[in-house]
Amino acid sequence: MTDPSARLTHVREDGTAHMVDVSAKNVTAREATAESILRTTSEVIALITEGSLPKGDALAVARVAGIMAAKQTSTLIPLCHPLPISKVTVDFKPEKDAVVVRATVKTTAVTGVEMEALTSVSIAALALYDMVKAVDKHAVITDTRVLAKSGGKSGDWTV
Amino acid sequence: MTDPSARLTHVREDGTAHMVDVSAKNVTAREATAESILRTTSEVIALITEGSLPKGDALAVARVAGIMAAKQTSTLIPLCHPLPISKVTVDFKPEKDAVVVRATVKTTAVTGVEMEALTSVSIAALALYDMVKAVDKHAVITDTRVLAKSGGKSGDWTV
Amino acid sequence: MTDPSARLTHVREDGTAHMVDVSAKNVTAREATAESILRTTSEVIALITEGSLPKGDALAVARVAGIMAAKQTSTLIPLCHPLPISKVTVDFKPEKDAVVVRATVKTTAVTGVEMEALTSVSIAALALYDMVKAVDKHAVITDTRVLAKSGGKSGDWTV
Amino acid sequence: MTDPSARLTHVREDGTAHMVDVSAKNVTAREATAESILRTTSEVIALITEGSLPKGDALAVARVAGIMAAKQTSTLIPLCHPLPISKVTVDFKPEKDAVVVRATVKTTAVTGVEMEALTSVSIAALALYDMVKAVDKHAVITDTRVLAKSGGKSGDWTV
Amino acid sequence: MTDPSARLTHVREDGTAHMVDVSAKNVTAREATAESILRTTSEVIALITEGSLPKGDALAVARVAGIMAAKQTSTLIPLCHPLPISKVTVDFKPEKDAVVVRATVKTTAVTGVEMEALTSVSIAALALYDMVKAVDKHAVITDTRVLAKSGGKSGDWTV
Amino acid sequence: MTDPSARLTHVREDGTAHMVDVSAKNVTAREATAESILRTTSEVIALITEGSLPKGDALAVARVAGIMAAKQTSTLIPLCHPLPISKVTVDFKPEKDAVVVRATVKTTAVTGVEMEALTSVSIAALALYDMVKAVDKHAVITDTRVLAKSGGKSGDWTV
Repeated sequence: MTDPSARLTHVREDGTAHMVDVSAKNVTAREATAESILRTTSEVIALITEGSLPKGDALAVARVAGIMAAKQTSTLIPLCHPLPISKVTVDFKPEKDAVVVRATVKTTAVTGVEMEALTSVSIAALALYDMVKAVDKHAVITDTRVLAKSGGKSGDWTV
Repeated sequence: MTDPSARLTHVREDGTAHMVDVSAKNVTAREATAESILRTTSEVIALITEGSLPKGDALAVARVAGIMAAKQTSTLIPLCHPLPISKVTVDFKPEKDAVVVRATVKTTAVTGVEMEALTSVSIAALALYDMVKAVDKHAVITDTRVLAKSGGKSGDWTV
Repeated sequence: MTDPSARLTHVREDGTAHMVDVSAKNVTAREATAESILRTTSEVIALITEGSLPKGDALAVARVAGIMAAKQTSTLIPLCHPLPISKVTVDFKPEKDAVVVRATVKTTAVTGVEMEALTSVSIAALALYDMVKAVDKHAVITDTRVLAKSGGKSGDWTV
Repeated sequence: MTDPSARLTHVREDGTAHMVDVSAKNVTAREATAESILRTTSEVIALITEGSLPKGDALAVARVAGIMAAKQTSTLIPLCHPLPISKVTVDFKPEKDAVVVRATVKTTAVTGVEMEALTSVSIAALALYDMVKAVDKHAVITDTRVLAKSGGKSGDWTV
Repeated sequence: MTDPSARLTHVREDGTAHMVDVSAKNVTAREATAESILRTTSEVIALITEGSLPKGDALAVARVAGIMAAKQTSTLIPLCHPLPISKVTVDFKPEKDAVVVRATVKTTAVTGVEMEALTSVSIAALALYDMVKAVDKHAVITDTRVLAKSGGKSGDWTV
Repeated sequence: MTDPSARLTHVREDGTAHMVDVSAKNVTAREATAESILRTTSEVIALITEGSLPKGDALAVARVAGIMAAKQTSTLIPLCHPLPISKVTVDFKPEKDAVVVRATVKTTAVTGVEMEALTSVSIAALALYDMVKAVDKHAVITDTRVLAKSGGKSGDWTV
């Protein structure tokens, strides 16, 4: 799961941070899917699905937040390269006492979009938290991870 | 833990989203602390603490990312009010196979800074993921939650 | 309707642009309401209200766009002062062949929020255009104006 | 003028909003021109052309605002794709009691720049309003629309 | 000129970066003036003052860039606090082979605006460089410094 | 050093500002290196290298600020084109009473990255100033200039 040899690539002699050079990499179609889960109470899930939360329609707001956040990834994550994002979808699956947030991002570029997908689900989940915090201040965002990636020389993979 | 009566406050008749009116609330000193955990492998933790990750010094980069993200909260979370943030600290505690990220945010304003603290730890954790993903693509960000809050009429609390 | 004497205030000798000094003005509660109208076809209005447009739920997206844009006003309009916005609502009234967009913004600050309300309805209307342009590239955004303003020494007014 | 068949493209089953997938579209040179009109009084037009407005040189400020806004389109309009803009011009034609704002935007990309041109004229017109509001609070921004578009598979067109 | 005792204030035990706590400081009127100089050739100065540079009217563009940059200070400088800026002026004095850029910024807040004034002149000077680089790629930006500061407990000073 | 003939390119008849059309230029690999110098006192240099400044680890913070600023260039400099940056490095060389800041930026695009490299060193130097201003308010940022450029039809050059 961990590939220690990768650490040899791009390391600067003094160990300082840098935005690594991707100019020699190939432009290819790339896609990534990430997930994050908001854990709350069944009562709050009912309020979300009924659309009766104090601040209004939570899923629509969180969806837009997640889509817009994908486009802000390179301004938020210091060493991320700006990418021409060609697709973003953000979906929600309410469960008994949780909402599963899933985002898929595509680009045609020299580097992948895992960070864009992760940023999208993270901000969507935070926007959900913001909508429910008046009724559940102890909600928790958990299991934020990449589910699948395709395109690029490191090969496709799925969890 | 859930206060259903709160849902009566600020609900619009048509259930649509809005940035709720906080103009009548009192300006007071407010503080919030949030936490998020990046789960990876003990090998990666060693690379982080040695400072030998491919992209460089992970904790310094993630700390700056977290501090700057706190200031972007109201541009990322659609219904958040812009606040004059007066302090942000972001700290990391490396453990066996995880890094605990903790942020404290203060303001003197009409509304609280939980979302700022949560956004700060979330983006700091994502920046860490970005630094380690070349060596562990299966790292997971988990347990993102508010630990404590003070100031404001809803009273102080700690997990 | 036009007050030529106002032009004497704040004019620099060389006529160059500047962000005028508002530091001596009083902090008061201020509110403004603005409106903008998207003119399209009755067929498109049906698609909007049915929620069957290609890019999805137009009104929810445009509402979030308008709320978030209000918070970006001082980064978009060069001479606007940054303000601590305390409330934003954006509403839509579909008519026969148009959608009326209305936004109300509040602050407690030294200067008014007309620009915030106007920016909010303008971006909400542009977001609507973006949603309908696949089915009506000739939609027009019109009648963008301030409807009412209160607070501040210039006095309250309504169109 | 309205093409109802277009609504079949890209519609999600649940009708939710998404940034549509443009990754299979061709990279071509694309251009769009948009217009917006600020309606005010002849007296204010004189102040604009004399350069004697309170906040200073209105057209220069509004031109820069419009150019910069074109570059912010994908951060303002939730479902817009980020594009590598290759040209922006913003021009003003003062008339008897109005200023006509016109912007042309070019890109070489997979999708068109109508939204960029519209956002450019809208923000330029709002910046003008901001400059004149001290002398005419009833100015109105109107007739914001796309005048012409070229490039892309939907074909070139002009109003 | 250097006050080593100041280093004792706000230092964290582990020496890591943080946005220092300003919540206990007094809200007062504060002002700062900064300067930066673009050194180029007398021929370029002539092009600037004639307004015949390739990209157009350099001083108007640089002035707007400087004013807008002042408002972006806390998003650019990691440890800066966001401040409600109440005034910004940016002025240019063309000399024989240089342009002197000067900015004054005011706020009523808990901390000073030196960084805002410095960011304003720096970005204004960079915008000027961008306008002249087609005719002088060896232009240099120099002597960027604070000229005067007032308000706050550290006392007023002028160079 | 100055090429007056260049002024004939892209000049608009009315001399107004515009983002020049680069759509016909070739996409090539481009690189630029810029430098800026923060002049302070030897005592402050000691505090920087010891890492004992009030706000914390100055070089790590300024490095991240410089890398992130490179990505913000087109939002700060009005007439700059947005570019897909493929590499950024920011380095610091402490000297007796100064810190030399150097940044290298790469892209594969239709126009060069001198402004990105200059913006990167300027913001990194401002971030350093922000870290040292508590102990040296008279620090000066100087000699901000392009050191070398490669790629593009104007040819490679080094100072």
